[in-house]
Amino acid sequence: MREMDIGGDQSGQAQSQERAISKIVIIIAMQSEALPLVNRFQLTEDPHPPCGFPQGVPWVRYHGSYKDLDISLFWPGKDPTLGVDSVGTISSALVTYAAIQALKPDLIINAGTAGAFKAKGASVGDIFIISDCAFHDRRIPIPVFDLYGVGSRKAFETPNLVKELNLQVAKLSTGDSLDMTQQDESSIISNDATVKDMEGAAVAYVADLLKVPAIFVKAVTDIVDGDKPTSEEFLQNLSAVTAALDVAVEKVITFINGKSLTEL
Amino acid sequence: MREMDIGGDQSGQAQSQERAISKIVIIIAMQSEALPLVNRFQLTEDPHPPCGFPQGVPWVRYHGSYKDLDISLFWPGKDPTLGVDSVGTISSALVTYAAIQALKPDLIINAGTAGAFKAKGASVGDIFIISDCAFHDRRIPIPVFDLYGVGSRKAFETPNLVKELNLQVAKLSTGDSLDMTQQDESSIISNDATVKDMEGAAVAYVADLLKVPAIFVKAVTDIVDGDKPTSEEFLQNLSAVTAALDVAVEKVITFINGKSLTEL
Repeated sequence: MREMDIGGDQSGQAQSQERAISKIVIIIAMQSEALPLVNRFQLTEDPHPPCGFPQGVPWVRYHGSYKDLDISLFWPGKDPTLGVDSVGTISSALVTYAAIQALKPDLIINAGTAGAFKAKGASVGDIFIISDCAFHDRRIPIPVFDLYGVGSRKAFETPNLVKELNLQVAKLSTGDSLDMTQQDESSIISNDATVKDMEGAAVAYVADLLKVPAIFVKAVTDIVDGDKPTSEEFLQNLSAVTAALDVAVEKVITFINGKSLTEL
Repeated sequence: MREMDIGGDQSGQAQSQERAISKIVIIIAMQSEALPLVNRFQLTEDPHPPCGFPQGVPWVRYHGSYKDLDISLFWPGKDPTLGVDSVGTISSALVTYAAIQALKPDLIINAGTAGAFKAKGASVGDIFIISDCAFHDRRIPIPVFDLYGVGSRKAFETPNLVKELNLQVAKLSTGDSLDMTQQDESSIISNDATVKDMEGAAVAYVADLLKVPAIFVKAVTDIVDGDKPTSEEFLQNLSAVTAALDVAVEKVITFINGKSLTEL
């Protein structure tokens, strides 16, 4: 499968890869995942809408400094009509685009909870750094369009971070459904994915277009190939796993502080 | 099912609904669908990237005047790595967002080819004006999140246009796959949709967020519940049906010229 590099180093950006990372954008789909980090980093919410975004978008920005880093955490917010988190690929792609446009960050971090496969060795509470993102629900059976649909992309590589923090590395597959059909499962297997979420590949797509390096930290709330229904297991574990995610993201951010992209 | 109005009239915009429509943004996913209209309206391609969009996005704008209308046709462009049209919900949502931000149009028109169901009376070459858009591949079986996933929205209503041009009206269901699984089919039936495409509900979502009225003109390239594989029938009919779409969109634009939103 053809893959695209979102390392952001193709167009002579080597220089920016050598200086210390300064500005980070974190994209998190759910408020319950975002708030522990907002508290941990003592971020404050921007007046709404933030960053000159247009009236009507529910996107929320939490902003602050942590050590030498300027951190903006974006949450796509509550759906204006229904009041639930604006999860999924469209909202996360839009907010990633708008955040990059507004802030020109050095690095994107997409963090969140996810499903995972016990057949691939995953357990509830595991934390993964993602090596590759792809979609599993964009089947376009026409030559080359099929590859576009899968949209496989490499995350920015962070060998030192992974080693230092002793984190597991795996591939991620993204789709807009919480459940999984047979066709989804075939595509996930074909993507060689251990982790399944609803946003990652969309964030990767936008980061790739705009040439911003992106990394992905995913915490497992439910075992997709287990006995329990995903939605039940997801809701049951959300709070505990969110706490584990929070700790992991703080370690990642602390590791990043003072380093350049090439040192990650 | 709860539905949201994208008529754009909620926030005291009655005045803007009374004056003649001036600025139109047309969103079309494929170059082969876009070029006949570009020629018909004698639109010219903006230097790339258009509208101050960031380097890296493949989005193309064709711009010009037609009668009293300022027309901008946006095509999401070719995927920078794979070279195929950037079809599907993420690209169309992003380009719709960026186009609205840049141009503040009075009206969005999403035009394109689509599949349709003979069980609902549709035939290849039929043109539909869409009354409602929803998604069929965003299954989130958690209360209220399920409704968010379906994302049902009303298109801007155009009773006079439909009557004058003698057009059929039907509901649209959107998903990121060209094919259709059993689960997709159940959702499409539950959405009561006659027409199936890969962009409409995403354009409707963004237009709703930003309170721009949106209408949808869809031409049928393939019968989803017929004998032929969708991808084969789609490619076979694309050229002829694109010509029919071109004629229909010209009639729609000509009808719109000189009228206010409330006269549509």
